Amino acid sequence: MTDTAQDLLDVRYMARALELARKGLYSAHPNPRVGCVIVRDGQVVGEGWHARAGEPHAEVHALRQAGEKARGATAYVTLEPCSHHGRTPPCAEALVAAGLGRVVAAMQDPNPQVAGRGLLLLAEAGIAVHSGVLEDEARALNVGFIKRMERGLPFVRVKLAMSLDGRTAMASGESQWITGPAARAEVQRLRARSSVVLSGADTVLADGARLTVRPDELGLSAELTALAMTRPPLRVLVDGRLRVPLDAPFFQTGAALVATCAAASARDRFLAEGHELLAVPGSSGHVDLRKLLAELAARGANEVLVEAGPRLAGAFARLGLVDEYQLFVAPKFLGSSARPLLDLPLARMVEAQDLEIRDIRAVGEDWRIIAVPKAAS
Amino acid sequence: MTDTAQDLLDVRYMARALELARKGLYSAHPNPRVGCVIVRDGQVVGEGWHARAGEPHAEVHALRQAGEKARGATAYVTLEPCSHHGRTPPCAEALVAAGLGRVVAAMQDPNPQVAGRGLLLLAEAGIAVHSGVLEDEARALNVGFIKRMERGLPFVRVKLAMSLDGRTAMASGESQWITGPAARAEVQRLRARSSVVLSGADTVLADGARLTVRPDELGLSAELTALAMTRPPLRVLVDGRLRVPLDAPFFQTGAALVATCAAASARDRFLAEGHELLAVPGSSGHVDLRKLLAELAARGANEVLVEAGPRLAGAFARLGLVDEYQLFVAPKFLGSSARPLLDLPLARMVEAQDLEIRDIRAVGEDWRIIAVPKAAS
Repeated sequence: MTDTAQDLLDVRYMARALELARKGLYSAHPNPRVGCVIVRDGQVVGEGWHARAGEPHAEVHALRQAGEKARGATAYVTLEPCSHHGRTPPCAEALVAAGLGRVVAAMQDPNPQVAGRGLLLLAEAGIAVHSGVLEDEARALNVGFIKRMERGLPFVRVKLAMSLDGRTAMASGESQWITGPAARAEVQRLRARSSVVLSGADTVLADGARLTVRPDELGLSAELTALAMTRPPLRVLVDGRLRVPLDAPFFQTGAALVATCAAASARDRFLAEGHELLAVPGSSGHVDLRKLLAELAARGANEVLVEAGPRLAGAFARLGLVDEYQLFVAPKFLGSSARPLLDLPLARMVEAQDLEIRDIRAVGEDWRIIAVPKAAS
Repeated sequence: MTDTAQDLLDVRYMARALELARKGLYSAHPNPRVGCVIVRDGQVVGEGWHARAGEPHAEVHALRQAGEKARGATAYVTLEPCSHHGRTPPCAEALVAAGLGRVVAAMQDPNPQVAGRGLLLLAEAGIAVHSGVLEDEARALNVGFIKRMERGLPFVRVKLAMSLDGRTAMASGESQWITGPAARAEVQRLRARSSVVLSGADTVLADGARLTVRPDELGLSAELTALAMTRPPLRVLVDGRLRVPLDAPFFQTGAALVATCAAASARDRFLAEGHELLAVPGSSGHVDLRKLLAELAARGANEVLVEAGPRLAGAFARLGLVDEYQLFVAPKFLGSSARPLLDLPLARMVEAQDLEIRDIRAVGEDWRIIAVPKAAS
């Protein structure tokens, strides 16, 4: 077989491994989404994916399915097999023990401290190793995990619903249901895949927002819905001055984390209701958002979904903390006295924030635009 | 041959006739764009399209090319052949004289007073007639001509360049080059296909706008560019209080029409510089836009391109005079203190203007969104 034919096979099986990895989209966090395919003599003999932290890794599932057929076979994994003892034994050792002949990884471990160690362990055991097959796709699937490992910060995705003239609500605050049911289902899936859904006091007070994942609106299979609901995102409220009362709807639907720079003396009152009060430094009653993100990353948050009003979303934008915007655009004009997309006062054109539009597609009657800041792209 | 096979052939040849008709996109106005294909025994024996008012109609060109082969042939025309004596003899008579066996039209004459007369004349001469093949496409090609014939008003297309957050300029007015060269070439072609390019005093004063068609920026073939430049759009300035001085760049590049409700005593001064001053009723210094449009239609304007600032474009929107928006969207945020897309103050969500998005596509680095008001669609 020529190198080219082998390359094509590698891509084909890695694509299948990525497809498996995607099943963990809604439940693998704080772990990465990983898939594994074991192939022997042109036959797939084992498949696996990582469903939830604490449960077996993708490689373990695939090895179990392959059994004795793993000997001399090729394993395709979407992430370099781990070499350290965590909640489960290292996968690299399991692959050696099973007698694999070759291991192909889509990408190395994103943690610079350990990158390459798993592959090295395999190579030292006489297994042929290869890395970098469909690497871009693999990185895109774990964009939050990778950013957390590499930079100690979560991937920040800002979701906004707006009219075609860039408005999010009428001046009065009237805003609900700008976009239609298909767009709202997309937002439900964005919440479900996130480690954290973050909002501000304005939104929670004005809209009575709960920011929960509603299983019947996800539009996913029963299996994925059930998995997603076992790992709902942490709901984080940024409330610098503790303006949202504990009897707000937001606090009636499960535990939440409240980030504040107000006196920590309120902590016990929140704890009594099942919520955590996190003191974050700030100024003029505004929480330091970068410090908050670092704290969330330290707690294992890979992807943070910001669903907030123009003030808080605008603050993230001003501070350069946004990795991706998902704009849901309703085909209507709300007019010039309606509220802006972002509270982002700029005086001159050179201050304009340059974006790169990655995707535009119809979502029901609405349109979804994915854009990333140019500097961060 | 079954009916179905004949239907397919009809669609095929009509599609070719529409392709020919489109060659008149930039020069046929005030006439409609029309194409004609003559087919005999499965062979195209004549083709024609209407280039400019006063010149031969599409059928005449096709008949000349077909010569004797037109006898017993089928003619495909994108618009019902005319039956009246205008600047050229009626095409229906020419088709009869040439001995055509069958005539297929995409649509009837949009003028309710004459619709069907051309086909009737043909049928009375013993020619088989059929209408309605690719009618939607044919109507789309002459949307302005049709609206003028049916309702005595031109088709109004509003072009706006905006940032992704719906802003057209910084608060200071700084605005040029929001969008890139590909978008600007699209706008040049929009101007070239229009009978009228209309702007307001704000835009002409602030940007020194000339609103001309620049042949080197059209991106068309030499033939179409040359044709377009022989029929440049009439430039119309809405200037209720005559704020724009006659030495503005706008007045230095050919004749223009100024619509005003100021004293008509200035007429001679404008005439001396080669421009026409049109007195239009109005109130508080604002020209009655509906009356202006009716006057432009009476002068033969099919498509009017509005390239104006938020105030004038917003006035067209408020009055329900817009048939189509073409939004050129630059991938950047200009921020919340920048100028709005339209000066359109609405208080409640129910007042929002519902739109239907017809098309979104990339234009260089920018995106073009075509949207039509729901009521008018």
